[in-house]
Amino acid sequence: MIGAWATALLGVAAGHAATRSGARIAAIGNGRAVPACSTCHGPSGAGNAVLGSPRLAGLPAAYLEAQLQAFARGRRANAVMQPIARALSARETEAVSTFYSREPDTAAAANVGIEATTINLGEQLANRGRWAQELPACVQCHGRGGLGGGANFPPLARQPSSYLQAQLHAWQSGMRDPGPMGLMAAIARRLSETDVQAVAVYFSAGAPTRANMPLSRVSIPPPDVGAVSPPGPQRIFSPPPESTIPPDEFGEVVRRGRDIFDDPARNAAAYVGNRLRCSNCHLDSGRKANSSPMWAAYVAYPAYRAKNRHVNTFAERLQGCFTYSMNGKAPPLGDPVLVALESYAYWLATGAPIGPNLTGRGYPKPLRPPVPADYIRGQRVYGQYCALCHGVEGGGQDAADGSMAFPALWGDASFNWGAGMGDIGNAAAFIQANMPLSQAGSLSDQDAWDVATFMDSHDRPQDPRFSGSVESTRAQFHDSPDSMYGRQVAGRVLGESSPASGGRLSPKPAE
Amino acid sequence: MIGAWATALLGVAAGHAATRSGARIAAIGNGRAVPACSTCHGPSGAGNAVLGSPRLAGLPAAYLEAQLQAFARGRRANAVMQPIARALSARETEAVSTFYSREPDTAAAANVGIEATTINLGEQLANRGRWAQELPACVQCHGRGGLGGGANFPPLARQPSSYLQAQLHAWQSGMRDPGPMGLMAAIARRLSETDVQAVAVYFSAGAPTRANMPLSRVSIPPPDVGAVSPPGPQRIFSPPPESTIPPDEFGEVVRRGRDIFDDPARNAAAYVGNRLRCSNCHLDSGRKANSSPMWAAYVAYPAYRAKNRHVNTFAERLQGCFTYSMNGKAPPLGDPVLVALESYAYWLATGAPIGPNLTGRGYPKPLRPPVPADYIRGQRVYGQYCALCHGVEGGGQDAADGSMAFPALWGDASFNWGAGMGDIGNAAAFIQANMPLSQAGSLSDQDAWDVATFMDSHDRPQDPRFSGSVESTRAQFHDSPDSMYGRQVAGRVLGESSPASGGRLSPKPAE
Repeated sequence: MIGAWATALLGVAAGHAATRSGARIAAIGNGRAVPACSTCHGPSGAGNAVLGSPRLAGLPAAYLEAQLQAFARGRRANAVMQPIARALSARETEAVSTFYSREPDTAAAANVGIEATTINLGEQLANRGRWAQELPACVQCHGRGGLGGGANFPPLARQPSSYLQAQLHAWQSGMRDPGPMGLMAAIARRLSETDVQAVAVYFSAGAPTRANMPLSRVSIPPPDVGAVSPPGPQRIFSPPPESTIPPDEFGEVVRRGRDIFDDPARNAAAYVGNRLRCSNCHLDSGRKANSSPMWAAYVAYPAYRAKNRHVNTFAERLQGCFTYSMNGKAPPLGDPVLVALESYAYWLATGAPIGPNLTGRGYPKPLRPPVPADYIRGQRVYGQYCALCHGVEGGGQDAADGSMAFPALWGDASFNWGAGMGDIGNAAAFIQANMPLSQAGSLSDQDAWDVATFMDSHDRPQDPRFSGSVESTRAQFHDSPDSMYGRQVAGRVLGESSPASGGRLSPKPAE
Repeated sequence: MIGAWATALLGVAAGHAATRSGARIAAIGNGRAVPACSTCHGPSGAGNAVLGSPRLAGLPAAYLEAQLQAFARGRRANAVMQPIARALSARETEAVSTFYSREPDTAAAANVGIEATTINLGEQLANRGRWAQELPACVQCHGRGGLGGGANFPPLARQPSSYLQAQLHAWQSGMRDPGPMGLMAAIARRLSETDVQAVAVYFSAGAPTRANMPLSRVSIPPPDVGAVSPPGPQRIFSPPPESTIPPDEFGEVVRRGRDIFDDPARNAAAYVGNRLRCSNCHLDSGRKANSSPMWAAYVAYPAYRAKNRHVNTFAERLQGCFTYSMNGKAPPLGDPVLVALESYAYWLATGAPIGPNLTGRGYPKPLRPPVPADYIRGQRVYGQYCALCHGVEGGGQDAADGSMAFPALWGDASFNWGAGMGDIGNAAAFIQANMPLSQAGSLSDQDAWDVATFMDSHDRPQDPRFSGSVESTRAQFHDSPDSMYGRQVAGRVLGESSPASGGRLSPKPAE
């Protein structure tokens, strides 16, 4: 014990020493080829918009260190930073990264003269993306408000617009390493020059929301999600642009529904037992074809469901999501939460023909894999494509502000055993059609089945229909080769030690 | 009192004497130019299919007497019957009519070899009509199963097919008086020769239902309502033909919904306080455009309603009908009755685009009348066009089997003060667009407003939102010139002596 104490204390002392040495480098350089970082990045690391130097203060140390290494090894091309990074020792690199990560972030939001069209486009790309091009919202990975999250997703908010533009250009031209899975290079290449400017300006201004926009800006109409999407290649239904939600009592309920859809933990906390979002499985806030879009679901109910062996209205179908996917308690029929969600789905379906067979409904079924799905192969796929966002342990990942950035795929914080994603075929279909974000369709059928099998071979909250024994619950509700419930994996029977289902989020401090 | 008794006894004795004299005429004639009725109409008045003579047994005396008078005065042209009717004294006419009205109806259903297509068409016209031509179902006036009702609507069931065809031909050619408002002449002229045969054969066979059809016939598919309707002149949505209700669990619920819609007193008795049918206001079982069709309503909800000042789902909108129009208790959300009705409406809307503005929704708004609406003029219109079916006292009319043929328009048995039909503008719109049955659009705007004003100037069950005083209830819920609630008519304040609302039908003996 004393040994451990001593090691810990030494670690703290070493950390302090590193910070001190980092502070010196930042202020005066390392006495060799490295000049003071503050020359370009400002005395407190707040960045310099004119020079295009990014804010460093408050960024994750691991991220900063990785960037210095990338400069040193030529994976980020930059005439100024490459020689500097090479001239830093490994210890100095760590020290200066640690120093800046602990500096308070005092960068102000740029208050540039932003044209309404620019901020509209920027807000849209930042917060909603452009799914017709498989462009997810920036905040989907970089966290709400672009505040960043973890070592892999740096903050974007209040970085100089010039810096953000330069990075997007660098990815477009191959001057910067394409990043994990080539995500950022691929995304940058789908952006037009107007897009690049708009999104950079938007984040440099602090990613304003309607609530915190300067008064002169609040008259800006909401982003026109849908309107700028090019028409799909096939005759796939397009939900109306968000700007056409009517400015009346009905529109208010529609907007409430959309807000619940995007963040039920915040806006329907009484009925959810995890922090998943409806939009985790129904991408683009329920708009995206082949991602179980809400417009296709709305026109498909009432319908008979084998799952509960009777005709379900749309409202009852929504209840099912709360019970299973959200691992919560279903709102009673008529509850404002259900009415708002139903109104939102109805509004999304404006103009869609009533009927169960709208093109783009659900997820396209992937072919059964060439060889039987396999846990070990799935684990490999997971490590390669999924762990970056969902975490090695499948627990998801939070953004810097504590809000959920990536959903938990198994464990206590995930959907329970009764959810549709617990069906391997369904999960494989979703994954194949939509994952990884921005690279939909890139996994082979085999990969999709393997990784779905891996995901669904972990424990998760109990099936709310649990009948007393895993065996009888499997017989009643999981009598399909696509369910791992009740199956033995790594010596444990799945479902036998599942935590109770039907939780309710404990109140969180206001975010 | 003794005087009254004596008069009553004398009356009974006179009745018996008349019956005896009628029996003699029927059996041997009147000894002058009138031969025995039984010669052609059979010994017990069961009719004769070969001769085309109708069954007389069990028909209403008033109807039989009116027919003899029509023959005598040439309003029904018939070479055999005209001289006979002229040779009967007034007393003999009454006597023979009374005799036959009291004879037991022993006529058997014709068991002719009916082709499936004929019986299909006949069943459709008889039970569903063909609304694209403003042809209501025969049973709408002649009662369920064509059993007749009252003096004006004789039974059709088990009349010889030859007789029924001859009558339709007589109306087509003007050989028979066109009847009240010319209804039957106008209807007959819209029937093709195939229609005439089909409907005559169908009723002669006893108007079989699927339940009582001989086994060899039950494989006949249900009538193809919708399929034979010519497409409307404008691009008005057409609900799918009934034959396409799928033969599965969902279709079963849809059919249950349709059955509730057509007869809630029988199929949703727990929730209704009167014997109105949904299809009284939503003609053609909710299919008819401009008659508040269910397909247009389904795609228009959820929506904000000023009536209750919040966004209503379709299910909540249905609840409103039970509370007000049906003067009952709304089924709880999720109740099988609501799910079935929602499923039926959803199915009717198959292919319709989601949105509130489908052509044919609701009732077309009539122009405000040239001169202010007037009770006395309305009373005159009512007597001329409405009383025949809805009764002089507005209490509606039953069919011979005790089922409701025509809805009560005011009084205890009608919708309550909270119903949409209590709004004069709404009622005028419905009346102008749909009444009298088969003569839609024949009333002027002025007539429609006048008669709606007359109808809504009578008392009816209390508004379920009654707040304790008529005055405050009017202020809260009837603050419109189109509501008569709380207004004084003929010295009484409407609503002040209203019977309680929210009744529940007392169990009726099985019909």
